Amino acid sequence: MLRAHNFSAGPGEMPLSVLEAASRALLNVPEVGLPLLGISHRSSWFKDVVAEAEQLVRELLGVPKHYHIVFLQGGATLQFSAVAATFLRGTGFHADYIQTGYWSEKCLPEAQKEGNIRILWSGENEGYIRLPSDSELNFSEDAAYFHYISNETVEGLQFHRLVGREGVRRVCDMSSDFLSQPVEVDKFDIIYAHAQKNLGPAGVTIVVLRDELLAGIPEGLPAMMDYRPHVEMHSVFNTPPTFAIYVVLLTLRWLRDEIGGLTQMKRINESKARLLYDLLDQSAGFYRGRAGKADRSLMNVSFNLSTCGMEKDFLIKAESQGLYGLEGHRSCGGLRASLYNAVTLESVEVLCDFMQKFQSEYAPSSASKIDNTGAVR
Amino acid sequence: MLRAHNFSAGPGEMPLSVLEAASRALLNVPEVGLPLLGISHRSSWFKDVVAEAEQLVRELLGVPKHYHIVFLQGGATLQFSAVAATFLRGTGFHADYIQTGYWSEKCLPEAQKEGNIRILWSGENEGYIRLPSDSELNFSEDAAYFHYISNETVEGLQFHRLVGREGVRRVCDMSSDFLSQPVEVDKFDIIYAHAQKNLGPAGVTIVVLRDELLAGIPEGLPAMMDYRPHVEMHSVFNTPPTFAIYVVLLTLRWLRDEIGGLTQMKRINESKARLLYDLLDQSAGFYRGRAGKADRSLMNVSFNLSTCGMEKDFLIKAESQGLYGLEGHRSCGGLRASLYNAVTLESVEVLCDFMQKFQSEYAPSSASKIDNTGAVR
Repeated sequence: MLRAHNFSAGPGEMPLSVLEAASRALLNVPEVGLPLLGISHRSSWFKDVVAEAEQLVRELLGVPKHYHIVFLQGGATLQFSAVAATFLRGTGFHADYIQTGYWSEKCLPEAQKEGNIRILWSGENEGYIRLPSDSELNFSEDAAYFHYISNETVEGLQFHRLVGREGVRRVCDMSSDFLSQPVEVDKFDIIYAHAQKNLGPAGVTIVVLRDELLAGIPEGLPAMMDYRPHVEMHSVFNTPPTFAIYVVLLTLRWLRDEIGGLTQMKRINESKARLLYDLLDQSAGFYRGRAGKADRSLMNVSFNLSTCGMEKDFLIKAESQGLYGLEGHRSCGGLRASLYNAVTLESVEVLCDFMQKFQSEYAPSSASKIDNTGAVR
Repeated sequence: MLRAHNFSAGPGEMPLSVLEAASRALLNVPEVGLPLLGISHRSSWFKDVVAEAEQLVRELLGVPKHYHIVFLQGGATLQFSAVAATFLRGTGFHADYIQTGYWSEKCLPEAQKEGNIRILWSGENEGYIRLPSDSELNFSEDAAYFHYISNETVEGLQFHRLVGREGVRRVCDMSSDFLSQPVEVDKFDIIYAHAQKNLGPAGVTIVVLRDELLAGIPEGLPAMMDYRPHVEMHSVFNTPPTFAIYVVLLTLRWLRDEIGGLTQMKRINESKARLLYDLLDQSAGFYRGRAGKADRSLMNVSFNLSTCGMEKDFLIKAESQGLYGLEGHRSCGGLRASLYNAVTLESVEVLCDFMQKFQSEYAPSSASKIDNTGAVR
């Protein structure tokens, strides 16, 4: 069997050592003597799992003491609602949002159900090919919070700077780049991220939140949208997704022990992305990157072929060679390679090699142009 | 290593063949060529997983065509909110509830956040040792719905009849006995059940709901509490817990192929429960069943030892012999054996054997009384 290289946008590639450990745990967790799925969430073993996972997020990301870390259900979608309900429900306040792609578009109607939203900037008319500069963002002084998405998975756009203004709470959906790089946590009031990109299985969402905001949460929110009971009960207010949280723990250990932390992780992620973006840039227009260069994502490389009909061939050929998950999002088509933490440099090299060969085959004249530069081969 | 027998109240025992298949899939799903956790929820393979799981629930339970089946996140707790929001939010209507144990108590404040609740009956003052008879339930004619919990996991109480009245919508939390027995689905408007008792891993909740109620759902509910987008998108409105849903599918296949369906499952569950309840009844008061006989649960057998201090010894000894998960819920202490679908008759025999030996050792006089009856040994 060909070794599979998985570029899926999520649920995405996971480290092999994590999958092997999870596979064994499904049959037996030696410390307990039971299969993982049959262990009570109230057991001392599972309590330790949550505590260690929390501690590792704290260490890896440098989360200050006055922040809580909770593991919740419902994906980023429930957080779209929970964040807005937390700060807006029943108040006359508004929040500032920016609309930078598919996911920040999906997030808006959920927030609008809970209160007033002001959209500072939208990239919709331009087709979400770039992110706004600071000078384009006229933040409100009196917003209850400012919300943005650090990495737009579909379009492959990523902020490489902190966005927002002093004196206004900063809330960020980091679903697709959380723990792919260091972050200045103390600049944020809430960071949330579902697991299925860089952290583990779909079905668990990590929320890092500043302690003081708990005091202002309005009464009457559904328990699954109210951070307080989950903070108080250390993520076991109700039965949590125990398997998913355990696999997140295994992935966190891998990040610390096999990768060496977030600075090292970012360096690897940059190397992977550079390989692929260089190839796009040197393809003489055969491959066309979607995102403006300054805002290119290290996580999701969205691109097109110069001839649209060729994209289907590309996907079929890629899959026949063990390269999976390269189709673009259904909303915009095209191609996309997601380079999450667990995607190895080697996999990206295999992909680049495949893409060069594909170009030589389908457009030998453009490919020979690359050969002339000597830059790619 | 001793073979473990797991009587955990949930997450609970799972069939070995299911765990083995899940363990293999974590490394590779042969139909796809990728590890389970890295497969996109938008892939045709996963679409088939959801469709087959839905179809199997439909077959096993005899779900009529005018009902939808969806797989959601957030546990029963999010359903406590979603059900009430669906029928009550923004209306002047009220709903009828009954308070029959720990879980129906937890459910009330969530419902009350969304509208007016009338509690028809509460077993709290009696200590939740029995369920109400029909003559004790004075149902409202004009309730938006009537809600009850078919099996109280903590106290070990189970309704062995349909509850409610004609002309009022019937909503039932079947979290701890769903798919343990046949059910007349067409008597219900909504049935919901989290998976971690009889169906699979914690982190997915199955909802069976009548089509016509979708039309009345108020606007403005958080997407994760609004059934419509999930019905419309066949449970992939947002990224679902793909692993959990796949394991539910494996368990449904096991129910059909290895057990032979719900009638057979109920027969097995009755045999297991009978063994254990007979032992309690014939222990001359050494073991004391918690629930009134008529309302005894086939799923959760809650009991006490005549001397409370002995319970700790019981748990330690049991665990040393590979019998796990026998501690009572933290709210009421005591002991509890959960006999979910995947717990085998053999495991219950091992438990009964252990309990008889324990009694002989700790209270030889009472044990000899049993010997005299000849009923137990």
